[in-house]
Amino acid sequence: MTALLYDLTGADDRRFSPFCWRTKLALAHKGVDFDTVAIGFGDKEQLEFSGQDRVPVLVEGDTVVPDSWAIACHLEDKYGDAPALFGDDPGRSLARFINNWADQVMLGAVARLIALDTFQNFVTEADQPYWRESRESRLGTTLEDMHAVRDDTVKSFRASLGPLRASLSQAPFIAGETPAYADYIVFGNFQWARNTSPFALLEKEDPIYAWRGRMLDLFDGLAAKAPGYAV
Amino acid sequence: MTALLYDLTGADDRRFSPFCWRTKLALAHKGVDFDTVAIGFGDKEQLEFSGQDRVPVLVEGDTVVPDSWAIACHLEDKYGDAPALFGDDPGRSLARFINNWADQVMLGAVARLIALDTFQNFVTEADQPYWRESRESRLGTTLEDMHAVRDDTVKSFRASLGPLRASLSQAPFIAGETPAYADYIVFGNFQWARNTSPFALLEKEDPIYAWRGRMLDLFDGLAAKAPGYAV
Repeated sequence: MTALLYDLTGADDRRFSPFCWRTKLALAHKGVDFDTVAIGFGDKEQLEFSGQDRVPVLVEGDTVVPDSWAIACHLEDKYGDAPALFGDDPGRSLARFINNWADQVMLGAVARLIALDTFQNFVTEADQPYWRESRESRLGTTLEDMHAVRDDTVKSFRASLGPLRASLSQAPFIAGETPAYADYIVFGNFQWARNTSPFALLEKEDPIYAWRGRMLDLFDGLAAKAPGYAV
Repeated sequence: MTALLYDLTGADDRRFSPFCWRTKLALAHKGVDFDTVAIGFGDKEQLEFSGQDRVPVLVEGDTVVPDSWAIACHLEDKYGDAPALFGDDPGRSLARFINNWADQVMLGAVARLIALDTFQNFVTEADQPYWRESRESRLGTTLEDMHAVRDDTVKSFRASLGPLRASLSQAPFIAGETPAYADYIVFGNFQWARNTSPFALLEKEDPIYAWRGRMLDLFDGLAAKAPGYAV
């Protein structure tokens, strides 16, 4: 049975949601075949069956699971014989900490650096008023003002990745010798940027840059094949 | 066989090293009996046998293990039948990420808030010149200047704990339903403060405060029994 993933799309069918990337890589990790249903920002009524209005939503037969973290837990529990995404506790709860870190510390910082590029290049004209208002309200400033200072803010962004940089100097992946869900969480944030912005978040000498390259190559280049900027 | 832990001591035999606390709780978690050897800042020559000059150092028979992270890995590998500190990967590498986060993001911020209290109250007069110079060099300012602005900096410290706060709203411990090494890592940083400073790092309504209380009670109050300030 092929699973169905409701996946965010922007203009030109650019699929850039960081949360959907977490799920796409988790499905590949578990070896689950899946098709995607493209959902634009204006298509929320198409998610009504899931009891909420955000992507990703995974459908497997009668099972409907919204929310990337809940989907990861569902996959881990259902496909226990496939390689672990995080294993039982402590692994699962420690991955949840990294999920919290990626959401709270990293994602807003990425948004400040590339949201105007996303907006101008890959948010449809119809969605632009909603997108601008929701992002500016969340981040407390205008897309243009954030953009204007990004050559400075990228420095504090890179500094804030210190714990990640240390981990990737200790092992090839956040999860150790092989990648797992913690890697997909953090990678999803970088992949949003790669899909929609020519701005270089990382310096090429950064161990995080080399790791991102390894992540792009996983699963026959699942993420590398998605259209994006080679920065 | 009783293990021997070389444990940092300050004035009045106050045992406040965050790294040694990580190890003391890890030993208790594994059910390993241990005695401690008190090492003052000026007693580094007593650690020469370990090939380096920092605490903690664990000695079990012929085995000598310095460094809190290496000790945790040693205990996990040696006492595989006891409850897991982090398990195999992904768990072990995810705990390492939290170790990096606690060292890079949290520990320096705690130091800025309480280092002058530690210095004045529990660093012996003989050790004070070394202690001041090493801490001020690491933090790039004087103990007094850090202290003077702590009513402001405590706000950004509390904000920086967002990922931890989220995790402790999702489960009673960082590691899930029961505590494990990730909890001991983060708790060690708070315990340094509790051992040496009357300054309140946390507000009583914070979920992290309640968690810290649960941590103090573990293993028959191992950490609660250590002299400290009830803040």
